[in-house]
Amino acid sequence: MEARTEQTSATVAEAKQKKKLTIIVFSGDLDRVLASFIIATGAASMGQEVTMFFTFWGLNVLRKEKAPTKGKGLMRRMLGWMNKGGTNRLPLSKFHMYGAGTAMMKKLMQESKMPTVEEMFQLAKQMGVKIIACTVTMGVLGIDKETLRQEEIDGYAGVVTYLSEAQQSSVNLFI
Amino acid sequence: MEARTEQTSATVAEAKQKKKLTIIVFSGDLDRVLASFIIATGAASMGQEVTMFFTFWGLNVLRKEKAPTKGKGLMRRMLGWMNKGGTNRLPLSKFHMYGAGTAMMKKLMQESKMPTVEEMFQLAKQMGVKIIACTVTMGVLGIDKETLRQEEIDGYAGVVTYLSEAQQSSVNLFI
Amino acid sequence: MEARTEQTSATVAEAKQKKKLTIIVFSGDLDRVLASFIIATGAASMGQEVTMFFTFWGLNVLRKEKAPTKGKGLMRRMLGWMNKGGTNRLPLSKFHMYGAGTAMMKKLMQESKMPTVEEMFQLAKQMGVKIIACTVTMGVLGIDKETLRQEEIDGYAGVVTYLSEAQQSSVNLFI
Repeated sequence: MEARTEQTSATVAEAKQKKKLTIIVFSGDLDRVLASFIIATGAASMGQEVTMFFTFWGLNVLRKEKAPTKGKGLMRRMLGWMNKGGTNRLPLSKFHMYGAGTAMMKKLMQESKMPTVEEMFQLAKQMGVKIIACTVTMGVLGIDKETLRQEEIDGYAGVVTYLSEAQQSSVNLFI
Repeated sequence: MEARTEQTSATVAEAKQKKKLTIIVFSGDLDRVLASFIIATGAASMGQEVTMFFTFWGLNVLRKEKAPTKGKGLMRRMLGWMNKGGTNRLPLSKFHMYGAGTAMMKKLMQESKMPTVEEMFQLAKQMGVKIIACTVTMGVLGIDKETLRQEEIDGYAGVVTYLSEAQQSSVNLFI
Repeated sequence: MEARTEQTSATVAEAKQKKKLTIIVFSGDLDRVLASFIIATGAASMGQEVTMFFTFWGLNVLRKEKAPTKGKGLMRRMLGWMNKGGTNRLPLSKFHMYGAGTAMMKKLMQESKMPTVEEMFQLAKQMGVKIIACTVTMGVLGIDKETLRQEEIDGYAGVVTYLSEAQQSSVNLFI
């Protein structure tokens, strides 16, 4: 009987574990970010617990529209200037063509009544998707909390937090 | 005794679950598509149940050689024109160099007696790898079923189908 | 009682399994390689068993600083010439700009006291991260063992070895 109880609790634990999903959003490309949000909101709509870790270029998604990159050196300022943030400014991974391909993709998304990245972001927030900003790359790329959409970020964390979540999740993607 | 039976069936269920693998083929780059098929056919040869979800640029793999992109607007037609499909027309992610790097890579693959993407695709089909086309991106990119290799596609599905498969699989990759 | 023993050993097996992580390092881009090593060393510091499979452009990480690409044909030699190896020569995935963006990123990493890829590689080795070179792509890209840092590579393997490891791991990433 005792064994059976343990069995049951193990099954429950396993079932609960099955419902978690993590995504590392490494890329800041419009199409890859879009894919991340489609998967994240899809999983949330199925009752799964979703955590998105924004790191490297993916941090651009979390930047305020016109926030400058603060930083001590000239380098950091130059990188910030090149690497404009905000959900509306993400380039396409292919056919960017100085903005023409990206504009075309956005037009197509609009025609297909596809939500924008900003709308997907809001939807994810409403559905309880956890939004985490990676502190390691924030340091390297010179991104301060003040330049991020702080009120919409659920946490600032490093690799240990990610790995703890991932170990408990059944689906872990790097996008 | 009863507990033990449950234990056994749980183990069997777990063992069966271990044998599943899903790959989201997001990229349409020759090298990344090749890596996807190497993993998929490798897993199938080990008796694993493999599902490949082709989405975004990965859908190019499933397009007929000379199929035009049908679509209402000019935008969609332009994107279709730039974004030529078919397993023989995939570019390289690096060193594409207006086709020179890609041609070189194909030459190398031939010298090494490496199968082409088309041969890998046929092999995957023969081994029972499930080929799924993502309906969401088909809509956005203006890809109609008629332009796809329909007789070789096992299904058309969205994110919910993907997540259901992924939750039952032990290895899930985004390529 | 017997059932319970089995239950316990199953739990132990499961717990042990939870501690494994695999990363396919497909990309040879500085930023993606860096992300791979941050995750790998982070997991190793948490006591997890980590295996990194270097394939395609990721094999550049394992190449000796000035090793030429040996190969029968002219093609292979040309690809080797374009595709310079060594941890210090990896380009950035974005803003490479003929080396300017990459140099800038390295400067930022230095300012932030971030370890270089070479330092991360050494750290990973010290922490017991398993370094595997993919034999399939070594063949295609014409990379001989002599051009690789053989004394630091733990094994040469193909897709079957990868899949066996991945099936036993709870986190599997393709970077």
